[in-house]
Amino acid sequence: MTRATILFASPDRPGLVARLSGFFAELGLNILEASNYTELHGDSGARFYMRLVVDLGAATTRATMETSFETQIATPVGGEWSIGYHDRVARIAVLVTKDPTCLYDLALRQKQGELPCEIALVISNHAMLESAAQSFRLHFYALPITKETKPQQEAQILDLLTRHDVDLVVLARYMQVLSDDFLIKAPPVINIHHGFLPAFQGAKPYHQAHARGVKLIGATAHYATKDLDEGPIIEQDVARISHAMTPDELVRVGRDVERVVLARAVRAHLERRVIVEGRRTFVL
Amino acid sequence: MTRATILFASPDRPGLVARLSGFFAELGLNILEASNYTELHGDSGARFYMRLVVDLGAATTRATMETSFETQIATPVGGEWSIGYHDRVARIAVLVTKDPTCLYDLALRQKQGELPCEIALVISNHAMLESAAQSFRLHFYALPITKETKPQQEAQILDLLTRHDVDLVVLARYMQVLSDDFLIKAPPVINIHHGFLPAFQGAKPYHQAHARGVKLIGATAHYATKDLDEGPIIEQDVARISHAMTPDELVRVGRDVERVVLARAVRAHLERRVIVEGRRTFVL
Amino acid sequence: MTRATILFASPDRPGLVARLSGFFAELGLNILEASNYTELHGDSGARFYMRLVVDLGAATTRATMETSFETQIATPVGGEWSIGYHDRVARIAVLVTKDPTCLYDLALRQKQGELPCEIALVISNHAMLESAAQSFRLHFYALPITKETKPQQEAQILDLLTRHDVDLVVLARYMQVLSDDFLIKAPPVINIHHGFLPAFQGAKPYHQAHARGVKLIGATAHYATKDLDEGPIIEQDVARISHAMTPDELVRVGRDVERVVLARAVRAHLERRVIVEGRRTFVL
Amino acid sequence: MTRATILFASPDRPGLVARLSGFFAELGLNILEASNYTELHGDSGARFYMRLVVDLGAATTRATMETSFETQIATPVGGEWSIGYHDRVARIAVLVTKDPTCLYDLALRQKQGELPCEIALVISNHAMLESAAQSFRLHFYALPITKETKPQQEAQILDLLTRHDVDLVVLARYMQVLSDDFLIKAPPVINIHHGFLPAFQGAKPYHQAHARGVKLIGATAHYATKDLDEGPIIEQDVARISHAMTPDELVRVGRDVERVVLARAVRAHLERRVIVEGRRTFVL
Repeated sequence: MTRATILFASPDRPGLVARLSGFFAELGLNILEASNYTELHGDSGARFYMRLVVDLGAATTRATMETSFETQIATPVGGEWSIGYHDRVARIAVLVTKDPTCLYDLALRQKQGELPCEIALVISNHAMLESAAQSFRLHFYALPITKETKPQQEAQILDLLTRHDVDLVVLARYMQVLSDDFLIKAPPVINIHHGFLPAFQGAKPYHQAHARGVKLIGATAHYATKDLDEGPIIEQDVARISHAMTPDELVRVGRDVERVVLARAVRAHLERRVIVEGRRTFVL
Repeated sequence: MTRATILFASPDRPGLVARLSGFFAELGLNILEASNYTELHGDSGARFYMRLVVDLGAATTRATMETSFETQIATPVGGEWSIGYHDRVARIAVLVTKDPTCLYDLALRQKQGELPCEIALVISNHAMLESAAQSFRLHFYALPITKETKPQQEAQILDLLTRHDVDLVVLARYMQVLSDDFLIKAPPVINIHHGFLPAFQGAKPYHQAHARGVKLIGATAHYATKDLDEGPIIEQDVARISHAMTPDELVRVGRDVERVVLARAVRAHLERRVIVEGRRTFVL
Repeated sequence: MTRATILFASPDRPGLVARLSGFFAELGLNILEASNYTELHGDSGARFYMRLVVDLGAATTRATMETSFETQIATPVGGEWSIGYHDRVARIAVLVTKDPTCLYDLALRQKQGELPCEIALVISNHAMLESAAQSFRLHFYALPITKETKPQQEAQILDLLTRHDVDLVVLARYMQVLSDDFLIKAPPVINIHHGFLPAFQGAKPYHQAHARGVKLIGATAHYATKDLDEGPIIEQDVARISHAMTPDELVRVGRDVERVVLARAVRAHLERRVIVEGRRTFVL
Repeated sequence: MTRATILFASPDRPGLVARLSGFFAELGLNILEASNYTELHGDSGARFYMRLVVDLGAATTRATMETSFETQIATPVGGEWSIGYHDRVARIAVLVTKDPTCLYDLALRQKQGELPCEIALVISNHAMLESAAQSFRLHFYALPITKETKPQQEAQILDLLTRHDVDLVVLARYMQVLSDDFLIKAPPVINIHHGFLPAFQGAKPYHQAHARGVKLIGATAHYATKDLDEGPIIEQDVARISHAMTPDELVRVGRDVERVVLARAVRAHLERRVIVEGRRTFVL
């Protein structure tokens, strides 16, 4: 059974749920999942969002369906939409530095079928995680970086992303700030920040948390944007800590939160559940 | 703006989302919330569930709409459904014994607008919580019970439920087992069990939990059925405990879980989100 | 059985656990609870903290014991300490404005024996919660406040705190900023902030959280200091929220977190578990 | 700096904290951590437990210290105790079948310094996880098992445990029930059960949980005893699930809980924090 997932957004008006679901019903396609959300008080009035998973069955061709959807549904109501076919598996690039936790976590989940994607390649600014990547039979590229070589290194990464046909970049504790130029040219980028944003932005959030004496630490997965640590948040979680823990122990406790939060965010993105609206996300 | 909430269940088939949403779209009624769920592997094949909140607007009469829905939508597909109008506020009865925590919690939430209901009356087998009920200006009835008088006492309760036009009975730490006969005659009954069911059924669950040395304790809100502590679970939660806690301290920690779990379950029921299917519930 | 709780802090050195516990052993007093913590990397070198609960039994007089402890234990090692006797119940003042949740919560817990204190009085800048206070038979004082009358109103509060022999002030959603002068003259003050500090300081934290699109909201109980929302944190917790929740719904969800966090912090303070060290607290 | 951890238990009596801490103070050894707990209502009266971490410094020999502790402290009060030296790293055996999650998790934590141990070997009844073990450079033994060969296979495992000088056996989703005879002869065994014990004992707990319609699933790490799933619980945790999840999705969500719970339990055991008392554990 081949499925497709449609993500749709438009100004709100009566009858949208019926229109969208009616479109697929008329094609004889069964709707396996449907959820919608209306943001009543958006900046430009009420806005409607819907996610549908349909069984493509013995349907018409994809191109025909897409054209019909655009002309019959989207255009008349000013809607924006995207579609993903489950037999076209997304390809992700994982960017790392030295910490292997998130890399192992993503690779293992992918292998166990938890993440609907292929890991096309692993890129690092160090050679350290090469054997970890190889133990999962993943392509690994070490691209060292200095202040001077940053533009060239980013160009190399962009080139690799293109050659490997990458749909999503995951920063799995990649300890470099990506340039605005890179972010404009690259596919979507998800970052894991090891702090409970918006608290503790920037470097060494666990040391900041320790100094402030908080009782919980957290991690935040967000889309990377040019404003560092200000991108739309996809997922967050926290863990309880004790005053007796050193910053190093916070790092240890934090790792368990980081990897779970990152995996949930990547999964939500891959399942086409995440809608970005300004600085917020809606996860349908 | 007056709203109505529809809860619908039927055997699954293609086109149901479109049919239901189309029905309201044709009446010119805006769908404010919609969620649906298909249980693929039910005992009698795939089954479809949907909850819709619609803005009644300047619509046709309610009776006409209900008749149309039955004949055009429900009957053709073998659907069961119910509808609630938000201007008809549900009336609940709270049954208590001596522990005031859940009573205060429900009364305060109701007063603050968190629970869409009126508390029609409070019934107890003791006089102890009379002043608590009165401080919220609630009707209070003390109906003592002994083994011998149980049938009469339950008859009195049933009579009060009828006279006060009660839609839902909430057992807020009512320390009596209701008879099968009562449960058949009464409106739906939600109970809070101070254990993480199915572990620790029956009496003194915190003492059982202490003796077993568990590291978390929980509470379970469920519909009361003739099989004690076996009714469909609506909501559960847990709290972490330490080996140093006595059973009395578990009671204290547990109270915070109980009241939150009970309130969430009552709210979900009142918002017409809960579907019972055998021993399970789906909370849409 | 009468108990005493000792809280002790000094520069770290070998033998402190033995010295402190030996002191009470020699007096024939059983140590019921003991916990200690050494902060290795404090600003002024390693620092030792210990909390002991002892059974006073048929011991020597309290004054004698205190003098001995000071001369034999504390002075030689440069220690600071305090002692509380369980038969001298702490007296707290609860300051409120219009939101009744935390007031009900504290009053009910006190009544059920969860908080080792008496609620000496309730003070508000509005009359609204008078009947709530009275339903628990608590003294209630309404002291309205304007920009102009703030110094006088605070003086009135200080006077009430003195006359009612108050040991701890609890700001249970008191919507006024206390002056530095007040904080210097008053007993310790615990505040509940309805945000996960240090994020979302200042007013309307739930609106800030909504605008930023966070996935969890929190509450923070801290000692009030002249730097608003910067005082040492005693306890924090969070609750998961959904993108579909309005700021008003965040308020509802947040209330459940606030009251539990505030109650835990007040309890920890009353049980003499909290040590303040700069901007951090250690909860033994 | 070399450290030792002492775990001590005896009937309660006044002066024990002072005695134990005094012993090490007199030897000039600094106490780095100390915690104690008195179980007041045990089956054989009040019982005292204490854990101490001491800096061995330039102390006397270990044998002398141990002899002195036994004769001066333990024997006079009927105490039982054990000691671990931090320069003698514990050696663990990890038993697996086909699920790699817990194996990867333990191996990675060990490598990152989170678990104070060496993984001496990995034993499986299948060959499937050989490459996973090898990617961490761990010895791997595949010992297939049938009903008939069970005694021989267990004998082989016991032989390997002896030859590799193993202190702790970790069942990381080992899908075989160990015989009573094995458990008597082996070092301590920690098992991860993928259910929230005591609910859902036995096989397929996620399917049981799904059928019962619970709203949270859990995992339990416990010492293996001859009564399956009845051993003393070391650690538990839960995760929230939705009615829409299939048993397979429960498995996925559960995996994240299992590995964290198992790692915490193994760590607590290795840090010599766990005291078993009947069916309960105290984690100091």
